Amino acid sequence: MSERVARAALSRLSEPGDVRLAALVAQLGATRVYELLRDEQDVAGVYTDVATRLRGLDPERDLEEADRAGIRLVCPEDAEWPVPVEDLGRTGPLAGRGGPPLGLWAKGPLRLDEACRAAAAVVGSRSATTYGASVASDIAAYLAEHGVSVVSGAAFGIDQAAHRGALAEKGPTVAVLACGVDRAYPSAHRNLLAYIADTGLVVSELPPGCAPTKLRFLSRNRLIAALSQGTVVVEAAARSGALSTANWASRLNRVLMGVPGPVTSAPSEGVHELIRNRGATLVTRGADVLELLSPSGSHLADVVRGPARPEDDLDDRQRQVLDAVPLLHAAGPDSITRAAGLARADVLAALTHLQVAGHVEHRDGLWRKRVEDVRP
Amino acid sequence: MSERVARAALSRLSEPGDVRLAALVAQLGATRVYELLRDEQDVAGVYTDVATRLRGLDPERDLEEADRAGIRLVCPEDAEWPVPVEDLGRTGPLAGRGGPPLGLWAKGPLRLDEACRAAAAVVGSRSATTYGASVASDIAAYLAEHGVSVVSGAAFGIDQAAHRGALAEKGPTVAVLACGVDRAYPSAHRNLLAYIADTGLVVSELPPGCAPTKLRFLSRNRLIAALSQGTVVVEAAARSGALSTANWASRLNRVLMGVPGPVTSAPSEGVHELIRNRGATLVTRGADVLELLSPSGSHLADVVRGPARPEDDLDDRQRQVLDAVPLLHAAGPDSITRAAGLARADVLAALTHLQVAGHVEHRDGLWRKRVEDVRP
Repeated sequence: MSERVARAALSRLSEPGDVRLAALVAQLGATRVYELLRDEQDVAGVYTDVATRLRGLDPERDLEEADRAGIRLVCPEDAEWPVPVEDLGRTGPLAGRGGPPLGLWAKGPLRLDEACRAAAAVVGSRSATTYGASVASDIAAYLAEHGVSVVSGAAFGIDQAAHRGALAEKGPTVAVLACGVDRAYPSAHRNLLAYIADTGLVVSELPPGCAPTKLRFLSRNRLIAALSQGTVVVEAAARSGALSTANWASRLNRVLMGVPGPVTSAPSEGVHELIRNRGATLVTRGADVLELLSPSGSHLADVVRGPARPEDDLDDRQRQVLDAVPLLHAAGPDSITRAAGLARADVLAALTHLQVAGHVEHRDGLWRKRVEDVRP
Repeated sequence: MSERVARAALSRLSEPGDVRLAALVAQLGATRVYELLRDEQDVAGVYTDVATRLRGLDPERDLEEADRAGIRLVCPEDAEWPVPVEDLGRTGPLAGRGGPPLGLWAKGPLRLDEACRAAAAVVGSRSATTYGASVASDIAAYLAEHGVSVVSGAAFGIDQAAHRGALAEKGPTVAVLACGVDRAYPSAHRNLLAYIADTGLVVSELPPGCAPTKLRFLSRNRLIAALSQGTVVVEAAARSGALSTANWASRLNRVLMGVPGPVTSAPSEGVHELIRNRGATLVTRGADVLELLSPSGSHLADVVRGPARPEDDLDDRQRQVLDAVPLLHAAGPDSITRAAGLARADVLAALTHLQVAGHVEHRDGLWRKRVEDVRP
C-alpha cells in the first residue's frame, strides 16, 4: 500500500490534530501505521479510538471518488506539498491538538506550495462589524494586488470579507475548511466556496464528506496559521476562534498582526489584547502587512504624514519671529523684537526672509502676517 | 535679590524652553544670571535676545500683582516644587526647546508636588471625534477616581474632555497653559479654567499676562510630559501637538500610551503610528493606564474575557464526544463512537458525564444534545 493511500486512510480514521498519530507517522511512515491499526495493534492508544471507523474503510475508493470530483490529496511526497506546515511537527500542541496534517485535500487550480510562498492569513470574528469587514476586504485586496495570497477560513464576517477582497482583485486566495472540501460550510457560502475552488484553492485535512465540528475548527486554525507567513486579526471578541489562529501564528514564529478599532467595540477587544499583551504588531492597512511580511527593507510602508505647512521650511528663530508678528494691526520692529524675545538684528533678518517667503507683509515700516498664512 | 525674584524676572525676559538660559541658571543660579543680563553682559547670546524686554521689567511688582490675583511662583527652593520636572535638565532638547522651567506660576488649591506624585497626562487632538472625547473623559474619570491626577492642556477636544472627566469625579486635575495662568485660552474655556483654578491647579512657566504662541505651545508640551509619570494620547492626527507631548514622554522615560481607534479615522492615525513604531503601549481603558503607572504587580487590570460557556469545564475527550452527539435525531453509542473517533468505553463514560452535566439527554438507549446547550 502506498503512502498516499495510507494517508488517505488515516485522514479518515483520525480526528485532525491528533498529535499521537502525527508522531507515529513521522516515526514509522503512514503505510506502517495504517497496517498496524488494520492489524488491531493498539499503538499509543490510537487503535482503541479509531476501531469503529476501520470498518468499511476504503481509501482507494476515497481517492478515486475525490479525483472524479476534482479533489486531490496533497502529500509530503508531492512537489505541491507546502513544506512550512511541517513547522507544526516542531512545536507543541495547543489545547491538546497539533502536529502537521497527514495530507491536505485540495480543490482548485492553484498549486498549494506556490500559493503559500507569499501568503497572509486574514481572519477574525464571524460577527464582524461593517467597519471590520471593510478593513479586512481592503487589506486583502491590497495584498492580492501585490501577489500575496490571502488565506482564511471562509466563515461569516471577516473571513468572507478577506476572501472577497482578494477575489475582487483577481488575486490568489486559499480557503481552509474544517470539513470536507466538497461541503459548503456555512451553506450560505456555497457560491463563494465554488468560486474559490474555480480560481484559488479550497483545502482541508479532512477527507471529502466530513462534517465540521468544534474540534475540527480549532484544528483547522493551526493550518491557517501554518500555511501563511503572518496572520492579521481584524476583529476578534474575547473568545473568538481567530484568537486560536493568533496563538498558532505566535507559536509558529509567524508574524502576528492586529487591526485596532474603537475601544468601545466588543469585536475589537480581542485584537487590542493581542497588541497590548501578546506581541501582535498594530497594522492599519495592506501596506503595513506587506512591509512586515517582506524581507527587511523591501516594501517599506510610507509613514503617514500630515499635510505640509508653509512654515515647515522656517528655522526656529524665524518661527519665533513669525509668532511675534501681529495678525490684525501691523507693528514696528521694536514691538516685534520685544514680543519675539530675540535680538533686533535677528528679527530684522528674519522679517526680510519671512516677507520673501510670503509669510508677512510690510508697509510703511510696519509688519503684519499675511492672511493666507493664518490657520485656525 | 532673591532667587525667587530673579526667576520671576527671567521667566518674563525669556521664551520658555530656552536651553541656554536653563543651563546658565543651573550653573550660576538665577540671581547671578539676572544680574549679568541687567548689566548687559551677553552670556551665551542671551542678552542680545532679551535686551528689549529688560526695559520696564519689575519682577517684585509682578510677584505682588500675581499674589493679589491668587497666583504663586513655585520655585525649586519651595516644598511644592515638582522635582520630576528636573528630568528636563538631563535630556536634550527637541525642536530646539528643552530644559527645566525657571519656575512654575500656579493658581489653585492643590500642592503642585502632591498633585504630580501620581499623575497621568491625557492629551490629544483639538479636533477630536465624539468617540475620542468620550474615551478620554472615561479614562480621566477612572484615574481621578483612583487618586491619579489628570494633567492636560485645556485645549479644545481631548484636553477638555480629560479635564472634565476628572472634574466629574471631583478628582485632581492640572491644566498646563502656554500663556499666563490669568488668561483664558481658548477663551471658550474661561469657565473650565476658572473651575480648575478653584479645585485643581492651573500652571504655566509664563508669567501672568503673557499670550500663547506656537512656540509656547511646543514648550508647554514638555511640561505636560514631565509633570506626569505617563502620557496617554487619545486621538492625534499626523501632525497633532499631542505627538510632541508623546515625544517628550518617551525622551523622559515616562510611560507612553495610546488609545486606538478606527483605522479609517484620521484623528487616530498619529496614535496608531505611536503604537506601531514608537513603543507606545496600547490602552483601552483607565484600568490599563493605572496598571502601567503603578508599581509592577499592583493594580493589575483584569484581562478582558468573553462570557463563560457551559462546555468550559469539559476535558478534550468529553468535548469531542459532545461534538459527536446529534442535535435533532438521537443516536446510539455505536454511531456516536464512530462520529467521535474515540474508544467506545471512553464514549460511554463521557456520555454519562455529559448527561449529569446537563449537556445531553438520554432516552431509550439513544442520545441527543439538550436544546439549551446549542448555540448558533
